[in-house]
Amino acid sequence: MALKSWLPIPPKSHFSIANIPFGIISHAKSSKPHPAIAIGEYALDLEIFAAHNGFSSLSTVQPHQAVFSHPTLNAFAALGKPIHSAVRKYIQSVLLESTPFPQVLKDNRNLQQQALIPLKDVKTHLPMQIGDYTDFYAGLNHAFNVGVLFRGAANALQPNYKHIPVGYHGRASSVVVSGTPIHRPNGQILENPTAEKKVPVFSQCKKLDIELELGAFLCKSNEMGQNVPLSEAEDYIFGIVLLNDWSARDIQAWEYVPLGPFNGKNFGSTVSPWVVLTEALEPFKSGGLENDIEALPYLDEKGAKSFYDINLQVDLKTASGKSGTISKVKGNNLLFSFPQMLAHHSIGGCPMQNGDLLGSGTISGTEVSARGSLLEQTENGKTPILVDGEERKFLEDGDSVIIRGVCGTEDGALVGFGDCEGTILAAAQLKF
Amino acid sequence: MALKSWLPIPPKSHFSIANIPFGIISHAKSSKPHPAIAIGEYALDLEIFAAHNGFSSLSTVQPHQAVFSHPTLNAFAALGKPIHSAVRKYIQSVLLESTPFPQVLKDNRNLQQQALIPLKDVKTHLPMQIGDYTDFYAGLNHAFNVGVLFRGAANALQPNYKHIPVGYHGRASSVVVSGTPIHRPNGQILENPTAEKKVPVFSQCKKLDIELELGAFLCKSNEMGQNVPLSEAEDYIFGIVLLNDWSARDIQAWEYVPLGPFNGKNFGSTVSPWVVLTEALEPFKSGGLENDIEALPYLDEKGAKSFYDINLQVDLKTASGKSGTISKVKGNNLLFSFPQMLAHHSIGGCPMQNGDLLGSGTISGTEVSARGSLLEQTENGKTPILVDGEERKFLEDGDSVIIRGVCGTEDGALVGFGDCEGTILAAAQLKF
Repeated sequence: MALKSWLPIPPKSHFSIANIPFGIISHAKSSKPHPAIAIGEYALDLEIFAAHNGFSSLSTVQPHQAVFSHPTLNAFAALGKPIHSAVRKYIQSVLLESTPFPQVLKDNRNLQQQALIPLKDVKTHLPMQIGDYTDFYAGLNHAFNVGVLFRGAANALQPNYKHIPVGYHGRASSVVVSGTPIHRPNGQILENPTAEKKVPVFSQCKKLDIELELGAFLCKSNEMGQNVPLSEAEDYIFGIVLLNDWSARDIQAWEYVPLGPFNGKNFGSTVSPWVVLTEALEPFKSGGLENDIEALPYLDEKGAKSFYDINLQVDLKTASGKSGTISKVKGNNLLFSFPQMLAHHSIGGCPMQNGDLLGSGTISGTEVSARGSLLEQTENGKTPILVDGEERKFLEDGDSVIIRGVCGTEDGALVGFGDCEGTILAAAQLKF
Repeated sequence: MALKSWLPIPPKSHFSIANIPFGIISHAKSSKPHPAIAIGEYALDLEIFAAHNGFSSLSTVQPHQAVFSHPTLNAFAALGKPIHSAVRKYIQSVLLESTPFPQVLKDNRNLQQQALIPLKDVKTHLPMQIGDYTDFYAGLNHAFNVGVLFRGAANALQPNYKHIPVGYHGRASSVVVSGTPIHRPNGQILENPTAEKKVPVFSQCKKLDIELELGAFLCKSNEMGQNVPLSEAEDYIFGIVLLNDWSARDIQAWEYVPLGPFNGKNFGSTVSPWVVLTEALEPFKSGGLENDIEALPYLDEKGAKSFYDINLQVDLKTASGKSGTISKVKGNNLLFSFPQMLAHHSIGGCPMQNGDLLGSGTISGTEVSARGSLLEQTENGKTPILVDGEERKFLEDGDSVIIRGVCGTEDGALVGFGDCEGTILAAAQLKF
C-alpha cells in the first residue's frame, strides 16, 4: 500500500514517497548547483535542509553532510550504499504523514518555505561528474533489428553477441542533462554507399536519430588490474537514469569500421536529471531476455533477476507543434544486466570509478511500436512514421524528443525518472 | 648552436635547456604531487621555486602562480599557450650561463638546494587529469600492415581510411604514468577463430602487445556544437608525450566487431611523465606521410608541416635479464597530424576539454625493424623476434617495455621525453 505523506503529492507523480531520487539543482535563492531530492511537485534542497539541521537526527550522515554542498553527487555517491539507503529512508520518514520527526519539516513552516522549491522553479544540472562513459549494446531486439537491416536476418547478430556484453567507450564530455539543446552534427557521409568508388562528402547529418536507453551511474572504484565480481557488482551501482544516445546514422555508417562509433555519437547524449537509487527500484526487479548460450562463470547470474520492469516511452514533438508517442517498451528488454556489464567491463582489470556512466544500449521490444530508435522504426528511412499525421524518417531541426520511464501502477507509489528531453538545433555555422 | 647553462647538463641529456618539459612530481621533502620542469639530471620544483619568489620577475605569471601547487598540470595548461611560452622562456633565461636574472637561481645556493631535486630522487605522477582519451589510427604503415595480416594486401585499408582520421574513444581512467606495472588482462578469447562454431573460452591474454604512439594533451575547450577549425587547432595542443597503448590482441579480436576495441585496450595505457611543449618541438616540425586522396576542406592543411621528426625507439627487457631494441622509427610516419585529428574530432561539435589526451595510433615505418607493435613484427605470432637471443612472439610476464623519443642530434640541444616504461605483471587472481 502506498505510503502517505503530509506533503500534498499528486497521485500520478513519478516522484512518490516510494522514490526519493537524487539530483543537482540551482534556483533563484541558491544559484550554485547542489544536491536535492525530488518529491511530488517539489525539490527538497538538501544543502538548505542540512544547513538547518535537517540531518541532526541521522548520526551516520551528520559527519558527511558537506557532501550536500558539492556541485555534483559524486561525493554523496562515494559514501556508499548503506549511507544512500540511510539518507533515503530518513527523508521518507521525515515526509511521512506519521513522521517520527515532525519538528524537522512537517511542523517547521520556515524550513518548508526555504527548502521545498517547486520543481518548475528549479534548474537541474548534470547529476554526476562523469569520469568515463561506456555504452553497451545489450538490447538484443535492437541489435537484431539493426543487424537485419544491414546484414540480413541470417547474419543479424555477430558471433560474439550473446557471449559478451558488447560495448564501446563513449565520450564523457558530451553527456548533458535533460533540457540541453543538441546541435545537428556536421561530418563526412557517403551519399551512395553501394557505389564502387567510396568518396565521402561533407554534410550536415541527414539521419539524426535517438536511442532509448537506461544509464547506470557508479559509486565505487576497483583497483586497476582487479575485477569487480558479479557477486559484488550491485554495490558499485549508485542509481539509474534515462539516457538518449543521439546518433548520426550516416556519419556513423561511414566512420565505424573498424574501430567503432565516434563522431556519429560524440556530439551529445542526454540523461534525465534525477538519479533513482537502485534501492527504490528493488521492488521492480525482473528477469531480462533469455540467453540461449551458456554464460562463462564470470557472467553467470545464476538466475538472479537484476533487470528492471520500467515502462519506457518516447514522445516526439515536431517543430510545427504536432506530438505523439512513438515508442513504448519495457526496460527489461536486455540480454545483459548492469551487474553483468560491470563484471565484463572490469574482467581485464579496467579501473572503474565513482561517477562513471554505463549505458544499456538501445532498448527495443519485438513489436514495431516498441522499437527504441527511428533507424529501426523507419527501416533506415524507408518507411516514415506518422507523428499526429506528420511524417518522420529521422529527426528534423526543431524536433523535441522526450523519454519518460516509470515503475509500478499504484497511485501514490510510482517510481519514475522525470523527463529526458532534448531539442534539435540546426547545425552550427562551420568555423574555418 | 646549443644554449649553455650554468647548471651542469650532460651533453646527451634529453632535457637540454632547449626543452623544458613540464611534469608532476613528489619527493622526500614534498610528498604532495605538484608541477616541475626537467632540466639535465634535475627536476626544478616549481612549487618551491614559486614560493621563493622565483617568478617575481615575470609579471604575467605571478598572479597565476597558485597553479604550481596543483596536483596536475591542468590549471597551468588552462592559462593558455602565451603563458606556457612565457614560463618556458623565463626558466630558460634563468638557467642560462649568461642569465639576466642571476639572483633568482644561479647565485642563490639556498634555492638551488631546495628546488633542484635529482631526477633519481623524484617520483613522477600522471601529468594531467584526463577528461577523455581518444586514440586515433593515423599510422598508415601500421594500419596497412595489420590490414594485410587480417584481410590481405588488396583490402588492407578500409575505404574510409585515407579520408578520415579514424579513431575511437579510449578509457581515460586506465591511462597511467611511466613506471606503473600493468597486469596481464583476463578475458574472453576465441582459441580457434577459423572454427565454424565460435565459442569463446575464459583465459589470460596470450597475445599481449605494445603500441608505440605519440600522445597530445589539450589545453583548451570548445563550446559543444562548435568545431575547432584547423587554423586554430594548434592553440588547443598543450604538448606531446610518448604513449604505449598496451593491447590484448586475442581479447580484441573476439570483441571488436562491430563497436571497436574495448577490454582489449582498457586495462592500461602508459604515458611518459614529461609533457614537451609544442613550442619546444617547433624546430623539429616536418611533413607526414603523403595522402593521395584530396582532403575535404576542414582537413586540408594546405601544406603545413605539423608532424614531428622524433626518433622513437622501443626497448624490451625480458624477465630473464636479456634486453634489446626492438623498433626504431620516425615519429612523422603518420597520415594525419594532431591538428587534423582535433579538427576531425570536433567537426560534429564534440566538446573537447583541457586535459584531454589524443593518441596518434601506432607508429610504424615500412621496414620490419621500424614496426611499432609485436603483432606486426611477428606477423601475429608466426615469426618470433629475438631479444638478445631470446625469442618473443608477444609479451611475457616480467617483460619491461621502454619507449624513448628524442628530437635533434646536437649535443646540449636535444629535446626528448624521458622513458615511457611498463612491466607486465601476471594476471591478477580472479574474484568471484
